[in-house]
Amino acid sequence: MQFTCKRLGLSSDNRVLIMDDDDAFEINAKPGDRVKLTHFKLNGEMEEDGVVAIINLATGTGLVKKGEVGLYDELWERLKLSSKNKTVDIQLQAKPKSFEAIMRKVKGKELSTDEIHEIINDCTAGALLPIEIAAFVIGLEIQDASDREIVDLANAMAYSGDVLDLGENVFDKHSTGGVPGNKVTLVIVPIVAAAGLLIPKTSTRAITSPSGTADSMEVLANVTFPKEKVLKILKDTNAGIFWGGAMELAPADDALIQVEKPLNSDPFPLMIASIISKKMCMGVKKMVLDIPCGIGTKFPTIDQGRKFAIRFKDIAQKIGIEAICLLTDASQPIGHAVGPALEAREAMYLLMNPGKGSTSLRNKSTELAAVLLEMGGVAPEGGGNALAQKILDSGKALKKMREIIKAQGGNPDISWEDIEIGKHVAEMKATKSGFITEIRNYHINKIAKLAGCPAAKKSGVEVVYKRGSRVKEGDVIFKIYSDSEERLKQAITYYNAHLPQRFSGMTIEKI
Amino acid sequence: MQFTCKRLGLSSDNRVLIMDDDDAFEINAKPGDRVKLTHFKLNGEMEEDGVVAIINLATGTGLVKKGEVGLYDELWERLKLSSKNKTVDIQLQAKPKSFEAIMRKVKGKELSTDEIHEIINDCTAGALLPIEIAAFVIGLEIQDASDREIVDLANAMAYSGDVLDLGENVFDKHSTGGVPGNKVTLVIVPIVAAAGLLIPKTSTRAITSPSGTADSMEVLANVTFPKEKVLKILKDTNAGIFWGGAMELAPADDALIQVEKPLNSDPFPLMIASIISKKMCMGVKKMVLDIPCGIGTKFPTIDQGRKFAIRFKDIAQKIGIEAICLLTDASQPIGHAVGPALEAREAMYLLMNPGKGSTSLRNKSTELAAVLLEMGGVAPEGGGNALAQKILDSGKALKKMREIIKAQGGNPDISWEDIEIGKHVAEMKATKSGFITEIRNYHINKIAKLAGCPAAKKSGVEVVYKRGSRVKEGDVIFKIYSDSEERLKQAITYYNAHLPQRFSGMTIEKI
Repeated sequence: MQFTCKRLGLSSDNRVLIMDDDDAFEINAKPGDRVKLTHFKLNGEMEEDGVVAIINLATGTGLVKKGEVGLYDELWERLKLSSKNKTVDIQLQAKPKSFEAIMRKVKGKELSTDEIHEIINDCTAGALLPIEIAAFVIGLEIQDASDREIVDLANAMAYSGDVLDLGENVFDKHSTGGVPGNKVTLVIVPIVAAAGLLIPKTSTRAITSPSGTADSMEVLANVTFPKEKVLKILKDTNAGIFWGGAMELAPADDALIQVEKPLNSDPFPLMIASIISKKMCMGVKKMVLDIPCGIGTKFPTIDQGRKFAIRFKDIAQKIGIEAICLLTDASQPIGHAVGPALEAREAMYLLMNPGKGSTSLRNKSTELAAVLLEMGGVAPEGGGNALAQKILDSGKALKKMREIIKAQGGNPDISWEDIEIGKHVAEMKATKSGFITEIRNYHINKIAKLAGCPAAKKSGVEVVYKRGSRVKEGDVIFKIYSDSEERLKQAITYYNAHLPQRFSGMTIEKI
Repeated sequence: MQFTCKRLGLSSDNRVLIMDDDDAFEINAKPGDRVKLTHFKLNGEMEEDGVVAIINLATGTGLVKKGEVGLYDELWERLKLSSKNKTVDIQLQAKPKSFEAIMRKVKGKELSTDEIHEIINDCTAGALLPIEIAAFVIGLEIQDASDREIVDLANAMAYSGDVLDLGENVFDKHSTGGVPGNKVTLVIVPIVAAAGLLIPKTSTRAITSPSGTADSMEVLANVTFPKEKVLKILKDTNAGIFWGGAMELAPADDALIQVEKPLNSDPFPLMIASIISKKMCMGVKKMVLDIPCGIGTKFPTIDQGRKFAIRFKDIAQKIGIEAICLLTDASQPIGHAVGPALEAREAMYLLMNPGKGSTSLRNKSTELAAVLLEMGGVAPEGGGNALAQKILDSGKALKKMREIIKAQGGNPDISWEDIEIGKHVAEMKATKSGFITEIRNYHINKIAKLAGCPAAKKSGVEVVYKRGSRVKEGDVIFKIYSDSEERLKQAITYYNAHLPQRFSGMTIEKI
């Protein structure tokens, strides 16, 4: 049936359209049913691919007339409608066949290559409802998948969008996440690129953490570019640090992530396929994977991290990507700063003052960069770290970083001091003297988020003293930054109720 | 933050509200986030319980103003708002704690009584998102639950609404479903009530099948009553056949079913807890459970049915309900008629002509009724069937059915012939002579639904000859009824492509 579309100016987390009650009766649809919308081109022909959406009904309101449907903005944009060209065909859709495959996975069966491609295609098309995708995610969480299934998943996800071919020598670094202040990308990328290797790094924005690499990089330069501009930047500088979300890499993966995030579920098969598919899209052939292990990460024990690493390497190889994994310490933040601007500042400080910057940030960055330098043949085996340090100490990494910032539209002459941070600062003091025996990442993240992270880029925290430090009563051991006094107050209240440090020689509690 | 509500006249399968972009920024909400709405009474006090809903955003449309929120109809009704009293407090809600318990179940852990009550309470309040409930359903599907957990589920679900106390002697009959034409309730209830036992039968409407008991009963009388009227009918006639959906029995169960249905998933723990909780709500103490076994039912093999029956009995006993289960044959329809009006007609025919009605309908009805008559002590052990037949043959069951129809506002003098069925009839003929060796329920259901079931009550099919019948070429073996010529044509096309019978002595296919 043919309908005229009306843009509603409404925004949902789903593709929704509103149809008149009587029209819905005619196509036999009830609220929550799925329909396929296919766009008519101006010449009257129908587009080949349709988009699936969920029906809501209007009952006798003026919102939509008979023969008209109201579209939420996501759907209007997805269909690329305009005021001149807004006629669509709408058909009621049955539950897609791929749902049967999902329930076969729920029941513990191995899926065929075709079944996996069907599921992933339907994720891209929006043909599966969120609860159906949830069944797939939970099914994988419990039943796991074979290596063959994961290879199929990665392939299907990658080819749900465009796959770049940048030649054989394309390098990358990725982290499975979970440790605060992990701004190593801002140091590794310039080191590796300064050594002459191509590293087209795509990063994420924070969703549940105080800052993602894309958020920190955005303090220094733009991170959102169309694909053509990304290719230009890579050609000019050998490197770039982009927000992957803007590039529509592996759109099927995004549909899955939209369900995984609210479920706090990231089953291994999807985690592996997601990383690999996004690397495939950027044409990556060799990579180092940073796997932070410890409480609060996806790998609470080293054993779990090791098991994942072995599996990841193996599957990546089957896809044609050589991967080396480093299990890394996640017991306290990398460096001292947490929050977009504070992290950009700490990374720039290290690049500008290699001898004086944070040791943990320096060590972790050069250790990860070393792997890529050796894989790329620019350093001999075992000689990667020395080369990485040399590139950092010589100022070549800083020079490359300034090139990247310039190519991405930032100020290439920026100094770490120029980076603005929250104007309201709370200095938290040690209430007794002693050694810091433990740092609690969970509370650090929480305090940074209460202070405004990641949306308020200048907010964040500085962990002045880390594990093993001896502090005296009255020493400033922790700073909180925010542009909002209200938020700062909330963060301080939380800090006082949940100290992010433990001290030896101090009673924790007496009841 | 305080908002004025506006009824949008929109209908979704979810509780949705639309908020102005700027307001949402102020409460820190993005599309898809959940908020709690609490109603202000006219005296300015806040209600105790709030309702959770999902936020959609309006960006610069006239639909909602700042300080105003637009409510979908489900939400407006749930909050019992009126044009005079439409002020609510709205707060952003975090993911509820019960979600952690859901993910513990996903990981295979046994849940505590408190955890189960939290999950069920949040289902009732709408605090869990559909994808979170989906995680619970799939978690139970794969990980199962202990008997103790199921007892807790049943208790929590029952007490999510009101639980009636009708004394110790309250009887019921329930079916796990899956066999077409199972109109036995319309025969069992009057038999059991005529014997003096109290049987407050609540039934469902069809969702995926051609007719539910409530749909068939509605052809004879009303089935939708408020609780007070239900109690009055039970007091007057000892029985009633009601649509359970109107009575808000175990509302938590309904929230679960809304996710189970589109997932085609009905995990044993929820199936058992759902049946038992709804019986608890009606104060049932003794029940017979009809478990149809065979292809197309929840129990493809007798073994699966037996395993379920043993578990069900055991759990029901722990809750204080005595249950006896009968595994029954589901290889072909019960009786000959499928569809709301055709089934009501067939049941009334049997009640009016006990010696001439369908044998399978008669036998299954008296066998199930027999169990209740024996449990109720009105028949000696082993004597239930004889008594059930006596009540049927003597006309006492018919008399009781007429009382029930009258009490529920129908025409007590109705004859089976008065029940209108579809005016367009297709008579399908045998194309060769032979024995019918198999009947395919799946195709029967499909044909009945194409003809208009369950919405078009007069539509349906008559399986003239069942398994074991000898038919001659040209005999009418199947009839399809509909009020719509278009629908009838579709049903005939499907019939010819998917014959619901197999014949011996006939080639099925030659390729």
